Amino acid sequence: MDLTEIETPALVLDRGKLEKNIRTMHDHMARLGVPLRPHGKTAKCFDIIRLALQGQPGGITVSTLKEAEYYFEHGIVDIIYAVGIAPIKLGHIAKLRKRGANISIILDTVEQAKIAAAYGQKLGAVFPALIEIDSDGHRSGVRFGDPLLLEIGRVLHNESGVELNGVLTHAGGSYNSKTIEEIQKIAAQERAAVTTCAQQLRNEGLPCPIVSVGSTPTANFDDDLSGVTEVRAGVYMFYDLVMAGLGVCSIEDIALSVLASVIGYQKKKGWIITDAGWMALSRDRGTANQPRDHGYGVVCNTDGRPLSDFIVGAVNQEHGIIQKRQGGDINFEDYPIGSTVRILPNHACATSAMHDKYYVVNSSTKVVNTWHRINGW
Amino acid sequence: MDLTEIETPALVLDRGKLEKNIRTMHDHMARLGVPLRPHGKTAKCFDIIRLALQGQPGGITVSTLKEAEYYFEHGIVDIIYAVGIAPIKLGHIAKLRKRGANISIILDTVEQAKIAAAYGQKLGAVFPALIEIDSDGHRSGVRFGDPLLLEIGRVLHNESGVELNGVLTHAGGSYNSKTIEEIQKIAAQERAAVTTCAQQLRNEGLPCPIVSVGSTPTANFDDDLSGVTEVRAGVYMFYDLVMAGLGVCSIEDIALSVLASVIGYQKKKGWIITDAGWMALSRDRGTANQPRDHGYGVVCNTDGRPLSDFIVGAVNQEHGIIQKRQGGDINFEDYPIGSTVRILPNHACATSAMHDKYYVVNSSTKVVNTWHRINGW
Repeated sequence: MDLTEIETPALVLDRGKLEKNIRTMHDHMARLGVPLRPHGKTAKCFDIIRLALQGQPGGITVSTLKEAEYYFEHGIVDIIYAVGIAPIKLGHIAKLRKRGANISIILDTVEQAKIAAAYGQKLGAVFPALIEIDSDGHRSGVRFGDPLLLEIGRVLHNESGVELNGVLTHAGGSYNSKTIEEIQKIAAQERAAVTTCAQQLRNEGLPCPIVSVGSTPTANFDDDLSGVTEVRAGVYMFYDLVMAGLGVCSIEDIALSVLASVIGYQKKKGWIITDAGWMALSRDRGTANQPRDHGYGVVCNTDGRPLSDFIVGAVNQEHGIIQKRQGGDINFEDYPIGSTVRILPNHACATSAMHDKYYVVNSSTKVVNTWHRINGW
Repeated sequence: MDLTEIETPALVLDRGKLEKNIRTMHDHMARLGVPLRPHGKTAKCFDIIRLALQGQPGGITVSTLKEAEYYFEHGIVDIIYAVGIAPIKLGHIAKLRKRGANISIILDTVEQAKIAAAYGQKLGAVFPALIEIDSDGHRSGVRFGDPLLLEIGRVLHNESGVELNGVLTHAGGSYNSKTIEEIQKIAAQERAAVTTCAQQLRNEGLPCPIVSVGSTPTANFDDDLSGVTEVRAGVYMFYDLVMAGLGVCSIEDIALSVLASVIGYQKKKGWIITDAGWMALSRDRGTANQPRDHGYGVVCNTDGRPLSDFIVGAVNQEHGIIQKRQGGDINFEDYPIGSTVRILPNHACATSAMHDKYYVVNSSTKVVNTWHRINGW
């Protein structure tokens, strides 16, 4: 099957680029001597995570219990559910743990630690937990220096039903960096915050086996991970325009795109209309605040080569409007009705979430595989 | 089952509000003497479209062939696929038509008309087609006065394999209106454009049985639909914050919300963190350009009553940050870990697209039904 035989819109994944991205990150981490715990939230697909694990039985990260269950059913046992735990989910986790899934939770309040302990005691389960650390002020976590760290640590260590498994941080602030130097600074800060917290726990006689950091930008620019036991990242498998804008990858590294058909024009306005709207591309406008704004995506030909200066300027539910970035004449005959283009996404997680499968190609338009992905909770 | 027993995030639909919204639009159209052809793209759920049809066997509108197939398999036969046709989809449509689905296509180029005719002749099928009219310059369609209208009309009427079924427009520009008067003006313009085009076709001896208009804002403010044979709308079933901002509904009319659990805080920053991020709410920021920007949604208690001044100020994939709109103190004890809130969406189509089911309530937190919905293509 060829891409031109597929009903559009459809999600396309270039296996060669995927494998190169995986290998590059894997080699980088090997040089730093720290194992990678791939994040399953971007791909949501075992065929991809299997490649990211590079044949090792290592652990993964997930963002939903549906991912945890799905990956576990494909044989992955060591799983960190890296969203602050909501009590309503503990019963589900206990069931999965009983079936053999070694799922750890994360939390950043004493209340969560106590609730998890009480559930664990009631259900005859033990919930291994990591304390989430806030290394850059962007979202959740205990701030460095807050006495809360030791309070939570003591509850997790002393109460039955829970177990203190370490500390974890996510330097999501790196997504808003303006320069590589800034990403490097955030990466250093990410490591410093979490290793210092680990030391504080240990100084109090509390165990801290796992010291976990991770975000695709910081992982790329980590140059010293002393004291860190693992790195989490997910977007690096596909990359996207936001990552290219940060200087983390090049546009040519982006493995993910959306196949669209030309369905009309407004020639006087310089518009080519396709059937890939926000439902296929997502509403993500992650490049809007970057120096180079790509609208809803960069337009490529069906082979995957960027078409000079074409972006998706506007979207409706099932319509995308392709425009020249700077205006200017378009030779509409080059884009006849029914011809196809591929659109590189702003944000790989958001765009792939709109689809339930990947059409896998390998540097050509021939579809070599169809890989299913999950969504939802 | 109660909402407090559901794993979050989850999509909640208030049946009382849904039925009131459906009844109000139905009564409005009955007064104007024009049948409603509900759009299935917002709900993507037969349980809801069944209610929208009000017991009548009438036709519907869809935005994907997956919707067409799904609704057809639930017994709906008369279907307009209201996205400009891509040739790659004609084979699929021909198959569905052979099974008894009376699917019409829309188009706005001579090329599409000729390609559809050629396919129809090759496949021994007939594709009924509507010519899309651009009534407000916002997207697709033949502009009023363009000789293209008659060119396309002649191809559809004269060639075998296709059939000229009428004209259709969607006044999507109404979503950007600033006042009710502006919506009324766009509604009048929508009717004028399509009825004039119908007359031009008829003056040339071409048939034009269907004269179709529609968008939720214009449908609400239509006061004269002479010459129009049907109105299409979808968002009105649920409504959302964008529609409330336009004055099309009140916030109390919004039937759709996302249930979320409190999973943490950054108390010094005035943040409550929940497990409903953009994956549950969508990335839609439709109120960003309205006078009242609701961030990623208005926060309500679990009963569905808006909490004064709380919005979702920021989102990550599985995290939402609730903030006071104007800052100010929060009594965090009112929002303990594990407590739930409901978030009203900016855009009902986009938010519901992130979910595969509706938890149906009826003015309480008791779940009376679970309705499945479809996604994808």
